[in-house]
Parts: sequence; C-alpha cells; structure tokens
Amino acid sequence: MRFDILTVLPGLLEGPFSHSILHRAQKKGLVSVHVHNLRDYADNKHRSVDDYPYGGGSGMVMQIGPFARCIEKLKAERDYDEVVYMTPDGSTFNQQIANEMTASKNFIVLCGHYKGIDQRIRDIYVTKEISVGDYVLSGGELPAALFVDAIVRLIPGVLSDETSALSDSFQDGLLDAPIYTRPEDWNGHKVPSILLSGHQENIAKWQHEQQLKRTQERRPDLLND
Amino acid sequence: MRFDILTVLPGLLEGPFSHSILHRAQKKGLVSVHVHNLRDYADNKHRSVDDYPYGGGSGMVMQIGPFARCIEKLKAERDYDEVVYMTPDGSTFNQQIANEMTASKNFIVLCGHYKGIDQRIRDIYVTKEISVGDYVLSGGELPAALFVDAIVRLIPGVLSDETSALSDSFQDGLLDAPIYTRPEDWNGHKVPSILLSGHQENIAKWQHEQQLKRTQERRPDLLND
Repeated sequence: MRFDILTVLPGLLEGPFSHSILHRAQKKGLVSVHVHNLRDYADNKHRSVDDYPYGGGSGMVMQIGPFARCIEKLKAERDYDEVVYMTPDGSTFNQQIANEMTASKNFIVLCGHYKGIDQRIRDIYVTKEISVGDYVLSGGELPAALFVDAIVRLIPGVLSDETSALSDSFQDGLLDAPIYTRPEDWNGHKVPSILLSGHQENIAKWQHEQQLKRTQERRPDLLND
Repeated sequence: MRFDILTVLPGLLEGPFSHSILHRAQKKGLVSVHVHNLRDYADNKHRSVDDYPYGGGSGMVMQIGPFARCIEKLKAERDYDEVVYMTPDGSTFNQQIANEMTASKNFIVLCGHYKGIDQRIRDIYVTKEISVGDYVLSGGELPAALFVDAIVRLIPGVLSDETSALSDSFQDGLLDAPIYTRPEDWNGHKVPSILLSGHQENIAKWQHEQQLKRTQERRPDLLND
C-alpha cells in the first residue's frame, strides 16, 4: 500500500510517520508513505501556494496549480485508487470505512491548510472527501496521519498480533471491556476477582457483559444501528 | 493555557507541536505544551511500562504506576482543570466540546498505546474521556495532538484573523460554502461569476444558500439537531 501526502507542512508529518506502527510497517515493506511539499510545485519565486478568496471573507485559500501539478505528476507514474481530501465537510470517517480502504493500493491524500482549498481541486481531482470528526483543525495534516494510521494497522502483518485489531472497539459493534494488568492491588484498588479466577468461560462471559454495559451507557447509538 | 501530555512516544508529537499554529501559539506565550515520556516514570531498569492483561487476551496493557507517578508529580506543582484520556470509547469530540474547553486553563492528557490502559487509571485519575471518532488508532498521540490543535486555535490571538475561526464549518451549525481563489479560469474551469460581481449582499446570499445546500446534501443530521 502506498500513500502520497500533499501538504504545505511536510515537517509536521515527520514525527507521526517515523514512529510506532507506521514506522514498522514501512520497514517491513508493507507500506510506503511519501510526503510532498506543495511549495515545490509553486510557479512563483516566493513559492507561495495560496491567495485571497474571491468574493471576500477572511483567511487564505490554497490555489489549484500546485495541487494539480503534483497530482498530475504522480498519476503519470502510477495508478491511484483514491484521491482523498481531508475536510470537515466530508464523509465522517469510521472503522467501516477504514476496513473498506484496505482493499485499495495507492492513495493520494490532500491536506488543506488556512481557510481551505479552491473548490475546483475538489471538483476535478478528488474522489473521496473524508472528515475525521465534527471539529475544525488548523490543517489536514493530523487528519491525514490519522487516516493512514487507522488503515495501515489493519493490514495483515503490521500489528505483531493480528487478533489484536479484531478485538478492538467497533470491530464487533461494541466498545471494549475494561482491561487490567499488574499489580493486582494498587493502593487498595483491586483487579476484579473474576479476571484472576482462571475460568476462561466465565471471564469471556464477564467481558461480554461489560462490553454490553459500557456500550449501553456510553454509546447506545451503536446498539440501535 | 497549559497541556501536559503523557506518552510512551514523545518523538511522535515533536512534529505536530513544533509547526503551524501550535508553534506560533507557544511562541506568543498563549499556550505551553509539555510532553512527558512515561518511561521516565517506570520503576524497573528496563523502563517497561506495560504488562499482559489479566484474564488473558491479546495485546499489552499500560500499567497504572508510571501514569500515577507522573500525574501526582504534576498535580503537586499546579492545579489541573481536567485529566483527559483519549480513547475510542470516550465522549465523541466535537466543536462544541472544543469551545467549552477554552474556559479551562490546565490540562493533563493521557495517551494510551498497545491495547489500552489499566482501568484503574481511568477510575482514579481521569475526569474526561474523549474520542476523536469511531475508529481505532495505534495510540492516543495523534488524537491528543488533534484535541490540542482544535482548542488552541480558538484562543483569541492565536489565529492571525480572529473572524477566521468563527466562520468555520460547525461554528454556525452549517458546513462551509465552496471557496475559490486565483486564477479565475483554470483550463476552462471558472470561478462562479457571482463571486466576481462585487455585490457583497448577493455574494453573502449565495454563500448562505450554498452552505444550506451542502449541509442538506452531506450532513442533513446537522440541520435536524
């Protein structure tokens, strides 16, 4: 799987892609992530990539030119399954979309910044608009890192223990049960005795009850879907 | 405003906090972000901070000790308004919660990793559990960066143009209208002529119609709230 990420802030993405599972997945050759600096595709000596919005209003708008030139160059090199734009008015990202995305191979991911990007980039190039949630951020870089992380960890071989991803919250439509590890007693706060009992059947039953209880309390909407 | 972030992967957060508005807000003295390496609070020579889950199952669980020692140390130094845990089974983060958070001053933010954190950390220390969306990530670091970014950009003086944040998607319950910038014509793809008309009243009317149309098409749930 390959991700080409277009941004004005490539440095912001260095940390997220050089640590943890994204780093390991790249080292294993399961994923490659390429971050492109949009300023390298500017057509002026100031390397400016934004301008004032038509019709007035505050904030700067990212121009079509740099995106278009970078996308065209990448598309000439290989086929892409999706050109994704991270935007708060896109489809709300969730675990099901992450699962579906694992069927694709090559992604271009566009990060907006400032006020957003020229609508024509969306009309001409973008195949999927994704929002990571109902809140506004200073740019699409963190959402792009989130998007890549959520998908990459589902690729077989990326997590050290594959069953780990399958037992996560949302994969079975329920939130996770509470989890505990050593020590058994922390200043009087004890691990539930059932978990120390060794009876796997009772433990599994308790965990499922806890999952249902937590989902009912916190996210009844997940049970009614 | 101050954020103390507890993580096993401090390097992952270097990029997000040293660029863009988070960098500027810190330079202006409006915000300070302190990233703490949980391994510095381990009590063993291997600096290990996780262990196997009680009751079996896959994945490692982060232990209470390192979190407890770091939180107690910070709390002895100053008061905190919230101890936030980033978790997919928390309350779903949105613009309204971001707005509310700007009334607080000091935050401790806990990042889980691996399978999650010992439930007792949540029971004893955490005052708010926040999910950035219905998907699972490899850790709480990117969600923590998102959480900080969404809040910090709302602090007066952080964005160069304050009206910019107010006109964002969600702040008025509607998605943004399409935006355009130079050039007027991109290979035959033109900017809507209304935006070039100079009639501010008509432009505002068109933009509001576009906002309603886009919200109706993409997120009718926002109109019914």
